This record gives sequence, C-alpha cells and structure tokens, in this order.
Amino acid sequence: MVKKSVAEILGTFILVFFGVGSAVLMGAHIGLLGIAIAFGLSIVAAAYGLGAISGAHLNPAVSLGVLIAGRMSAAEFILYVISQIVGATLAAAVVYLIATGRPEFDIAVNGLGQNGWGAGYGDGYGLTAAFVFELVATFLFVTVILGATHGRAPVGFAGLAIGLTLAGIHLVGIAVTGVSVNPARSFGPALLVGGQAMSQLWLFFVAPLLGGALAGVLHVAGVTRPD
Amino acid sequence: MVKKSVAEILGTFILVFFGVGSAVLMGAHIGLLGIAIAFGLSIVAAAYGLGAISGAHLNPAVSLGVLIAGRMSAAEFILYVISQIVGATLAAAVVYLIATGRPEFDIAVNGLGQNGWGAGYGDGYGLTAAFVFELVATFLFVTVILGATHGRAPVGFAGLAIGLTLAGIHLVGIAVTGVSVNPARSFGPALLVGGQAMSQLWLFFVAPLLGGALAGVLHVAGVTRPD
Amino acid sequence: MVKKSVAEILGTFILVFFGVGSAVLMGAHIGLLGIAIAFGLSIVAAAYGLGAISGAHLNPAVSLGVLIAGRMSAAEFILYVISQIVGATLAAAVVYLIATGRPEFDIAVNGLGQNGWGAGYGDGYGLTAAFVFELVATFLFVTVILGATHGRAPVGFAGLAIGLTLAGIHLVGIAVTGVSVNPARSFGPALLVGGQAMSQLWLFFVAPLLGGALAGVLHVAGVTRPD
Amino acid sequence: MVKKSVAEILGTFILVFFGVGSAVLMGAHIGLLGIAIAFGLSIVAAAYGLGAISGAHLNPAVSLGVLIAGRMSAAEFILYVISQIVGATLAAAVVYLIATGRPEFDIAVNGLGQNGWGAGYGDGYGLTAAFVFELVATFLFVTVILGATHGRAPVGFAGLAIGLTLAGIHLVGIAVTGVSVNPARSFGPALLVGGQAMSQLWLFFVAPLLGGALAGVLHVAGVTRPD
Repeated sequence: MVKKSVAEILGTFILVFFGVGSAVLMGAHIGLLGIAIAFGLSIVAAAYGLGAISGAHLNPAVSLGVLIAGRMSAAEFILYVISQIVGATLAAAVVYLIATGRPEFDIAVNGLGQNGWGAGYGDGYGLTAAFVFELVATFLFVTVILGATHGRAPVGFAGLAIGLTLAGIHLVGIAVTGVSVNPARSFGPALLVGGQAMSQLWLFFVAPLLGGALAGVLHVAGVTRPD
Repeated sequence: MVKKSVAEILGTFILVFFGVGSAVLMGAHIGLLGIAIAFGLSIVAAAYGLGAISGAHLNPAVSLGVLIAGRMSAAEFILYVISQIVGATLAAAVVYLIATGRPEFDIAVNGLGQNGWGAGYGDGYGLTAAFVFELVATFLFVTVILGATHGRAPVGFAGLAIGLTLAGIHLVGIAVTGVSVNPARSFGPALLVGGQAMSQLWLFFVAPLLGGALAGVLHVAGVTRPD
Repeated sequence: MVKKSVAEILGTFILVFFGVGSAVLMGAHIGLLGIAIAFGLSIVAAAYGLGAISGAHLNPAVSLGVLIAGRMSAAEFILYVISQIVGATLAAAVVYLIATGRPEFDIAVNGLGQNGWGAGYGDGYGLTAAFVFELVATFLFVTVILGATHGRAPVGFAGLAIGLTLAGIHLVGIAVTGVSVNPARSFGPALLVGGQAMSQLWLFFVAPLLGGALAGVLHVAGVTRPD
Repeated sequence: MVKKSVAEILGTFILVFFGVGSAVLMGAHIGLLGIAIAFGLSIVAAAYGLGAISGAHLNPAVSLGVLIAGRMSAAEFILYVISQIVGATLAAAVVYLIATGRPEFDIAVNGLGQNGWGAGYGDGYGLTAAFVFELVATFLFVTVILGATHGRAPVGFAGLAIGLTLAGIHLVGIAVTGVSVNPARSFGPALLVGGQAMSQLWLFFVAPLLGGALAGVLHVAGVTRPD
C-alpha cells in the first residue's frame, strides 16, 4: 500500500509538473497546443513508468470511477486521493520554485496554471459552460479509461490511449476552464495562487467527480462495458 | 445490439466533441494543426475505450466499407449509421451549448465547425477540388481501416493507426473542405448552422460514401486485402 | 506480385498525398511542424493499412537497403521502385488537381512541394549542406527501418517507429532541402513543376540511395544488426 | 561489446542530430514545440532501431541509473558513456557542418543548441531554477525509464513511452535550460560553441547524474520498482 501511495504521489507529480509546468514556464512559447500535448504525455510517462505499481490513476475522478466500477476498495480509494493531492501540491510548489527563477515572474500576474472561468479567465466563458465542459469531458475521459483498461481491450495500449485522450480533451477546453477533469490537478495550483482560484475550486471537484461517477455507474451497469 | 448502438453514439460523440469542439472553442489558439490532431486523437479515444464493443466505426462511410467487405450485416449497418448521426448531432449541440458561454460567440458569424467549400469557406476551393479531396481521402482512409483491422495486421495497433491517419488527412484538407470523410460528422454541425452548410451537405454524403464503397470493393476483391 | 505492386503504388500515393499535399494545400496554416507531422503520419497509415501486403517500403532508398540486407530479390526491387515512382507521380498529380481549385494558386509561384536547395529555395542552404543532410538522414532512416523490422525488435511497432522517425527527420531538414530521403517522393512533384526541381533532382536520387545502401551494408555486415 | 558501443554512438548521434539539429536548422520555423517533439522522436527512432543491441540508453544519466539498479556492469557503463559522448559530439559537428551551408549562419550569434542559464540564455532563469529543473526532470525521466523497461511493464512500449516522456520534459524546460537531462547531449554542442556553454557545462553533468542516481537508488530499494 505504501508503494502504491508513492506511485500515485510521483505519478500525479509528473502530471502537474508536465502540464502545469509547461503552461507556467513555456506557455508563451508553445501555446495551448503545446500545453495540451504536455498534459497528454504526462499520462504516458506515469502509466508506463509507474502503472505496474498503482495503475496510475493520478486523479480522484478516475479513482472514483474505478471504485464504483468495483475495481478498488474504499480504503484504497481514500489512500489514492490523498496521495494524488499530495503529489499535485508538491509539483505545483516545484513549478513555482522554478518559475521564481525568471526575473519578471509574478504569481499574482502570471498565475500558476490554475483552473477557472468567467471574466478575466481564459476566453471568459461563464459558469454553465465551465460546468458542462468539465462534466462531459470527465465522463468521456473516465469512460475511455474504464474501457481501455478492461480485459477485452488490447493489452499494453491503455497508457497511450488515455494520455492521447487527455491531450484531446485539453485541445477542446483550455480556453473554457484551463481543463481540470481532475480535482487534484486543480487543488495544487489553487492552494498556491489563492484568491479566485480557491473560490472557484469547488466546481473542479464537483463536476469531475460527478462525471467520473457517472462513467463508473454506466460501466458497472454494463452499458459501456465490453462483456 | 443496444450496447453496440450506445457505443457508436458515444464514440461519434467523442469524434465530434473533440474535433468540432476544438475548432469552435479553441481554433483561434491552436490553429489548424491543433484541430487536425484533435480529430485524430478522438479516434484513439473511441477505439480503445469503446472499440471492444462496436468496433468504433463512428462514420457511415467506414460502416459502408465494412458492410461491402462482408464484415457486418445490413441490419447492423443501418443501426450503426443512425447511431452515428445521433451521436454527432448530440455532440454538436453540446459544443454549441458550451460555445454560447463565451460572450462574443455568434453561430451566424463563427459557425460550428461545419464542412463546406467555395467563396467564403476556408481558402475558397471550388466544388471539383472539394469532391476530389473528399473522395480520395475517404477511399484512402477506409482502405487503411480495412487493412489495419484485418487479421494479418499487428494486433492492437489499429486504433492508433486509424486515428493518426485521420489526423494526417486533416493536415491535407482542412483548408479545402474542413475535412469530412464522414457524413455523420458533417450532419451534426450543419443541422445547427443551417444555410449553406445544409445546402452543401449532399457532397459530404456522396463523396465519402463513394470513397468508402470503393475501398470496400477493392478490399473484398482481394486487391488491397493481405490474404 | 501484382498485389505488392498495387500496395506500393497506393502506399507511396499516401506518402505524397499526405506530405506534399499538406505542404501545398495547408502549409500556410500548419507551418513546417505540421508538414513534418503529416509526412510521419503517412508512413503510419501505409504501414498498418498496407504493410501486411508489401512491407510498405514506399521509397527506393528503403528498398535498396532491404535488397542489400538480403531481404528481397532484385526483381522485386525493380517492381517496387517502379511502383513507388508511379504512386508518387499520381499523388502529385491529384494534389495539383486539388490545388488548382484555389483561385490564387499558381504552380510557377507556389510550387508543388518539390525538393531543392540554393538561393530561392527554403533557407538558402548550399549544395554541400543539402547533400550531407540527405545522405546522413537517409542512412539513419534506413538503419532504423532495418533494425525496427528485424526479428528481435518488438512486434508491431515498426510502422509507428518508422513514421515517427520520418517526422523527426523532417523537423531537422525541411529548411535545408524540403527533405527527400526518397527519390520517388522527389520525382513526382519535380515532374510537374519542372525547371530547377528537375535540374536538381539528381541529388535526391544519389544522396538517398547512397545513404540507404550504406545502411544496408552495415546491417548485412552485422554492425547494426541485433544478432 | 563493440556492437553495443556502435549502437550507443549511432543512437546518441540520432538524439543530437534530431534534437539539436531541429533547434539549429529549423528552430525559427517550428518553435520550441517542434524542437521538443524532435527530441522525443529521436528516442523512438533509436529505441526501435537500435535498442535490441544496446538498450538505447543514449545518456550517461540513464546509464548511471541502470548501473545503480544493477542492470549493467561498471565496465559496460564506462564504455556506454564514452560512446554516448562520441556520438553526441559527432552529431553536433555534422549539424554545424550543415548549418554553415546557410549564408547568414554564425555560430557565435546563433549558437548550436547548447544548454545554459542566466541572463542572455533562454528566458533568463537563474542557477537555482536551472539546477532544480535538471535534477527533478532527470529523476523523473530515469524513474520512468527504469519502470517502463521493467519486466512487469507492457512489452514493446518502452521506446514510445520514454520518447514521449522526453518530449514532455522539453515542453516544460526549454526556456529554463534548453533541457539537458543528459550530459552527453550538453557536451557535444558546448565543445563546438565554447565560451559560456563550456563554463556552464558542469551543471549539466552534476544535476542530471544526481537525478539519475537518485532514480536508480529508489528503484533498487524497491520504492519505485513494480515487484
């Protein structure tokens, strides 16, 4: 169990270090396309590097779907979620540490890759759009994960498929919410940035967890399960 | 059969949500390269997440090729096509709903990722160029699909290969027609946008279906079939 | 043999349709990064879609390396090369046909994705740079191909690995020569463009064939062969 | 052993030819996103093309992690490191040779894709940021490599996973240090550029080797090892 916890900490660290790190340190150079790719590749890295230990969930919404699908225990779920939040927060802190090495960096101005919506965030999408996007995107994401890791899916491809799916989701929604689909990914940066990032954090827990739960329910009910 | 229908609805939803969604919500940020990649990754997501249920056709032109190749029944074909059109239309509606959350969004000005040709669309290519592109691209696409899912192709790689092929096709033709190669993908946005998108819709049924049928014929005749 | 010939014609058609097509029809939108990716993805498409029939060489320099490595006969080599040249020329013609559907297209001004060097081509690299790049890049490319298709390499990955390698090579050299590493890919556009493209065509036969031959020799000598 | 040495020379040549070559010859066209992808694809090329011979380490920090993990002998380690440095230096020289074919190229102005930090390099990050980034990134990189090549990871995927991981790391840090995570990759260009690249070279030995060693220690201690 300790080993699984370490793997989830490290894996979620990779997710936030690649994704949020690319946004904060390289966003001006690589654009939203580059950031989307970085998020996707972080899953590939964690899945093939650490997946044999913990399954590389890296995301409380994913773990919730897996729990509902009957593939993990409640005790494991709690351990995974705590580990994911720890890993995401550590990574946000390391990204922040590196960012401060750029003379003109100011977290109050540049932010730290936090999620959000409304005036002054991204393209200014409203709350409904943000909620719908996060709910739908997480539902699709966790549906793909549960299908791709099912015994009837091709062996070995899940990490690639899931990473590329996350990249695709970012290509749809970075301008809307910055794309969470993952409460841990939202928590880390929000904790350090504070302000609006903290006051809007609830949405990035509620919508992704609802989406992940729905995916788990449809899977366990057999609607989206191959057998 | 219900399960396969749900899988095709969900899979085609993913195709349009990723592809058309990236164009409508993120096009200004990620450019045509990003949109091409999003279309490709949608196939990867649907193929590994839902392919074990329905084969993840997501496209009437693909299903027509598979039907002609003798790999599905006529009844299944009809169910698949209806499901694909339902999924694509639902996704277009969700993208539209999210898009309206951006204050300055106007479907009459911004469109909804619909296909088209002629003055005022893309780079202004004429009808002949549009038809030739859609016919040739769909023929190549369905030929690759029938080959990559054949028993002599490497197991498990089809989803990746087909998704990357669709990305490649978009890198050639978004400026020409927006790239359909898929009547369902064209139908959903056209229904909501109306006007020229509806009056030009016929081409995105005729040319892709002809291309897919030709690929099916050459496959079943043994010309492009490994054995 | 006819089936292999058709597969090489179709496969090389895909290579030029994706690669040259993306340059001619979409270059202004996707940049050299997009073109590089399109060339890479064309190999993935052809390898998984047609590789079980002909091996998807798509390139006389590759076939020469395979011939020297003792994996194909001289008669097959000649058939493959002719088929590759036919496929590349057909694809260049189709790209040209589509391109003429854009009102402002002029082949004398816009070209057709032909290779070249010197003042007025790309970033103006000289002959020596062009020759060294094509020689080194083709040597590396064919070395990777012979290794990735060897019995000790992981089964099924060759198409992906070779396609991504070709994308990487384009990321190094499009500004130098437009990247050939493939006499057939150079021949098709040059035939239609004429002029300097034809007078410089010799380099895109000599350097790639030398590079491919060297890779074949080192492989058959055991230097770069796993066993 | 000679064969392994040749494979490491050639493989590291591919790494520097693709990565540094894309930066020097194509950087102005493809941006930092394109360079990041080129570095990643170089690993894919070398891993599938030469991995069956030497394992395609291509990097002294990787070899150090593998040594500590108990998967190679000290004699092999030394041979690998020398070969990697030779390959990287040869590739830097070939890139330089090609670059001089562009009339306006000046190594004193344009550099040769060397690593660095501080005022006048990248976005001007300081020494601490550079050290932290290189240490953390190499630790994650080698952790992923040791996990992905472990017997319990899916067979055949390591090359893809490791290459995509390196691309992800570049998407985070090119603006910080140019991304080394590899003393050999830093050595080649520095030798030819001289000046500040040489005086800062120590960091690109110390931080990556520390990161790689830490990954090896945690792996051999069982913390990040699947079994």
